[in-house]
Amino acid sequence: MSAVSPELRVFLETHIPLIEEELFAFLPLQEPEEFMYRPMRDYPERGGKRSRPALVLLSCAAMGGDVRKAVRTAAAFEMFQSFALLHDDIEDDSEMRRGKPCSHRLHGVPLSINVGDALYAKVYEVLAANRQILDCETTLSLIKEMINGSRETFEGQAYDVGWIRGHIVPSEDEFMTMLRKKTGWYTGRGPCTAGAIIAGASAESRQAIGDFGEAMAIAFQIRDDLLNLMTSEGDAVTAPGITSGAYGKERGGDIAEGKRTLIIIDLLRKCTTAQRTEILDVLHAHRDDTTQEQIERVISLAHEHGAIAYAEQESRRRWEEAVRLLEVLPETPQRQLLREMLDFFVHRAF
Amino acid sequence: MSAVSPELRVFLETHIPLIEEELFAFLPLQEPEEFMYRPMRDYPERGGKRSRPALVLLSCAAMGGDVRKAVRTAAAFEMFQSFALLHDDIEDDSEMRRGKPCSHRLHGVPLSINVGDALYAKVYEVLAANRQILDCETTLSLIKEMINGSRETFEGQAYDVGWIRGHIVPSEDEFMTMLRKKTGWYTGRGPCTAGAIIAGASAESRQAIGDFGEAMAIAFQIRDDLLNLMTSEGDAVTAPGITSGAYGKERGGDIAEGKRTLIIIDLLRKCTTAQRTEILDVLHAHRDDTTQEQIERVISLAHEHGAIAYAEQESRRRWEEAVRLLEVLPETPQRQLLREMLDFFVHRAF
Repeated sequence: MSAVSPELRVFLETHIPLIEEELFAFLPLQEPEEFMYRPMRDYPERGGKRSRPALVLLSCAAMGGDVRKAVRTAAAFEMFQSFALLHDDIEDDSEMRRGKPCSHRLHGVPLSINVGDALYAKVYEVLAANRQILDCETTLSLIKEMINGSRETFEGQAYDVGWIRGHIVPSEDEFMTMLRKKTGWYTGRGPCTAGAIIAGASAESRQAIGDFGEAMAIAFQIRDDLLNLMTSEGDAVTAPGITSGAYGKERGGDIAEGKRTLIIIDLLRKCTTAQRTEILDVLHAHRDDTTQEQIERVISLAHEHGAIAYAEQESRRRWEEAVRLLEVLPETPQRQLLREMLDFFVHRAF
Repeated sequence: MSAVSPELRVFLETHIPLIEEELFAFLPLQEPEEFMYRPMRDYPERGGKRSRPALVLLSCAAMGGDVRKAVRTAAAFEMFQSFALLHDDIEDDSEMRRGKPCSHRLHGVPLSINVGDALYAKVYEVLAANRQILDCETTLSLIKEMINGSRETFEGQAYDVGWIRGHIVPSEDEFMTMLRKKTGWYTGRGPCTAGAIIAGASAESRQAIGDFGEAMAIAFQIRDDLLNLMTSEGDAVTAPGITSGAYGKERGGDIAEGKRTLIIIDLLRKCTTAQRTEILDVLHAHRDDTTQEQIERVISLAHEHGAIAYAEQESRRRWEEAVRLLEVLPETPQRQLLREMLDFFVHRAF
């Protein structure tokens, strides 16, 4: 695991508390407290690396902007993630999120759908409140970035969920389109573009730093899917100034959920016909009917056929692409912070 | 049933097609078509009276504004309704919506949650596109109105769903707070306020027409809850220029869902202790275990104890309040249209 440099550590330790302060200021405990406002605070309070909001600030800084004006927008991205995870957990019927039961397992599906909706509305509330510190057109640009990026996220999610429901195995190209949409924007392109908008960067610069963010996000997500198969619960990923890094999901949970990942796509095209039938049976069974033994068997096949190695290679390739894309920007201490964030985010163990 | 006046008929026949054109222009059929864009068009295509978008235009006209500039915002309100109904149907596990199976019964819960999310993002996409025809501050004001109103809607929904989940019987005051939040804004106050914003009306005028819209919406909703118990399926509510008015929900479906309505609240405070237990057992049973006979028994008790009559009286009282609130506005032909819309909307049979 790559360590966090002292400079990035100081940056994160200084700024993450500001982001969290802003985040929770927009999530007051009021009525209906039990049915809405308390559950709305739950996912944000469970911590996480706050990587996406940190990226907003780092991108703004690298583009020569004033990071203090980016804190609110950073909080909006963290809120978007909480919303997206919450609805995603319902859609996948996941069990655990950051070491605790998922929202719908605590409050039921109906209330949790509504809590997610309320969080998503809050994202826009936070962005609209930018008008107090930014001009009207910049405020509207950030809202439009959120709208466009949300659409990408929902399109990606539609593929992801639709493939499971339809028992469809996508091609690698189709899978990468899904990943770019579902994760590429909100984990990377969105925060980086937003930071650049606040800094008043040109359309070309926004595009360039957005491309960097997207490559980083895809490297991260492929790596995250690998971690889902490789780590055991409680295998913590922590760094100073970062609230909680426990992975907090069950080993091989993606397989139980029938998720299509790059590992699965690659495994299915490399394995024997009999193995393919066996794997698809595991993926398409209801998650409650899937045994840990079946999950271990799929993981073992993924090792055997080199699907784990292929995914590692693809994650690394995207990381290298992100490194190259960053070199286009002017060489400043702020760019260096972004470079370190890339390594911390993707968190290469290879 | 009150008839539609020739003037309102002409207004609706002229403007509803424009609203629908705008609405569907923002809902193109593209990929992922099967998993997202086709289901997104489903609820908007099922018709409905288009009363909420029509209200945006009528309010704008009554405030002296240019209705052509309000068509896009009107489409956004229709889209918000589709989103709200879609998630509400999942949360209530409803069966039918406008004569067809609910979205989640066609596409499953996971895809339908995501389709709803995508529709809600579209609401903001449509409102942000107002920048092409309105100035930046007005565009942002309309977005803020949608954010604030959404929050009210989700708060109302949290009470509504939370009470069912917690087997809680609210007081009449608590119930009316829920109704004002859940329905008052998006059915009345929101569209009326938005029309006034586009017309450039003063804060006082916005408030006044918003109060009118809220009273109308509450009168409508109480009446709608009565219809749920009183009509049989296919009891159409139609008017020229209005795509589809079939009620399209099962008789007494609210009782099967355990919904708290004014009728139920009033019945529970008037009935005997034994009847209260009997009614609550029906409300709290799973909807699939509730027989039509049990539903008819609750309806019969509601008649017997005057709960139907009480709800009719309260709906009329709100309608009268709306009539009075409208008289504050300058007496113009446009105000007269809004007055006729009130009657058409609330659709008094008393």
